[in-house]
Amino acid sequence: MTDPNLSMNLATLRKQYGFAEAVEACLAQGITAISPWRDQVHAIGLAEAARIVRANALRVTGLCRGGMFPAADAAGRQAAIDDNRRAIDEAAALGADCLVFVVGGLPQGSRDIAAARTMVAEGLAAILPHARACGVPMALEPLHPMYAADRSCLNTLGAALDLCAELGPGTGVAIDAYHVWWDPDLEAQIARAGREGRILAHHICDWLVPTNDMLLDRGMMGDGVIDLPQLRRWIEAAGFHGPQEVEIFSAGNWWQRPGPEVIATCLDRFHTVC
Amino acid sequence: MTDPNLSMNLATLRKQYGFAEAVEACLAQGITAISPWRDQVHAIGLAEAARIVRANALRVTGLCRGGMFPAADAAGRQAAIDDNRRAIDEAAALGADCLVFVVGGLPQGSRDIAAARTMVAEGLAAILPHARACGVPMALEPLHPMYAADRSCLNTLGAALDLCAELGPGTGVAIDAYHVWWDPDLEAQIARAGREGRILAHHICDWLVPTNDMLLDRGMMGDGVIDLPQLRRWIEAAGFHGPQEVEIFSAGNWWQRPGPEVIATCLDRFHTVC
Repeated sequence: MTDPNLSMNLATLRKQYGFAEAVEACLAQGITAISPWRDQVHAIGLAEAARIVRANALRVTGLCRGGMFPAADAAGRQAAIDDNRRAIDEAAALGADCLVFVVGGLPQGSRDIAAARTMVAEGLAAILPHARACGVPMALEPLHPMYAADRSCLNTLGAALDLCAELGPGTGVAIDAYHVWWDPDLEAQIARAGREGRILAHHICDWLVPTNDMLLDRGMMGDGVIDLPQLRRWIEAAGFHGPQEVEIFSAGNWWQRPGPEVIATCLDRFHTVC
Repeated sequence: MTDPNLSMNLATLRKQYGFAEAVEACLAQGITAISPWRDQVHAIGLAEAARIVRANALRVTGLCRGGMFPAADAAGRQAAIDDNRRAIDEAAALGADCLVFVVGGLPQGSRDIAAARTMVAEGLAAILPHARACGVPMALEPLHPMYAADRSCLNTLGAALDLCAELGPGTGVAIDAYHVWWDPDLEAQIARAGREGRILAHHICDWLVPTNDMLLDRGMMGDGVIDLPQLRRWIEAAGFHGPQEVEIFSAGNWWQRPGPEVIATCLDRFHTVC
């Protein structure tokens, strides 16, 4: 039984498997879409990863991740731009639906979030021609505001769509339930994203109560408080019908369990909860 | 030397002092404005707390806190309304500038944040006549989105101002740096709050990187990444010139230090950072 509507973000299986083993474990349970991280691709080599993708006719719903543009000096910002160009090449080689961007937070020592946001816009603009030339859509992922300082100063779907409008064609958004579920403007901004043709990816997991770690305590769908069916309805009503991508960072729970159990649970919850 | 521009939220000294001792320690360093929590007032008794306030001509910049309206059943919601009426009475007895509201998150077992927001609006509307009769302004405090599930489903200044507009006279906002610093719409919403005459309180502390606990790891001003002078300029430009109120929950650091050191550090940082 395959399920083309579920994509496995390989961070969910980061502690259990490398790229090749993760693909094998997903295929064993009928999952044919994945979203790998760059370090996982680098570990096996880009050519071998691309070969595995083609050999198994996998859909790559995204490559994680580009971004991290702000830096304290021009050399740092240029290094980020150069690295993002390589990420675009990798996404193209893998035939990914998009390159997902976590844009970065405040540069070391800075308290100027407006300046960081400018650095992000400038960095994205610098690489956009290359992304267009390679046919790789750039998916800006707004991150939860609790990451504003150290991971992403792009913190609402509305702000991400404003930035897409500024940048133009070739850009869109990745909508991750974990990051946006709280937003009182979410329904309206998803509808706007649909109208503007910007939805590139739909990520799912759950928000646990309590959350014991700001980064590594995401929940399995159904174990938290996010209304995932409603989010799905809003996103589908906005015209996006791509796979939902499960991305769970869970140092204390799911990363400790056997890979086949995690995959089976993702499938079960996807069918019963999402 | 007194400093009427700094108010001490007594949660900052929660582990060191009860109400009376906290007041004494603040006065010893020239602080004449405080914001107590209800449990601190209850511990000494409302009449005695009010007597101490009057005897020392203290300014009470707020009473913390009302709110927590959502509940799984009507009895729970009514109990919250009743308790909030008592909080209004206490704020009136203390002559507080406002009663600060942390509105509450999702009821147990619920994933419906829109319903929770409706419960909040209904709860606030139910107590507003009593607050008006008592002359106690109701300060809605938008909390950081990371508290949306368990503490407050009111998560942006814009949403708080929308709710004030719906409720009408007698309502306003408490703007806490910790909760709102990340908001890309912050400057515009503070200006709006000024135009609409809604700013009732200005709370300060700092956002640490990393933040090791979602609730109890707030930083001393200057130790984190919030641009507090800019926030102060925006709030003052919007017409609010009341004291800045220091509210630091810090289980691992400031709550472990001697009270006089904490107070002296607050004063020093207030003068050098804010």
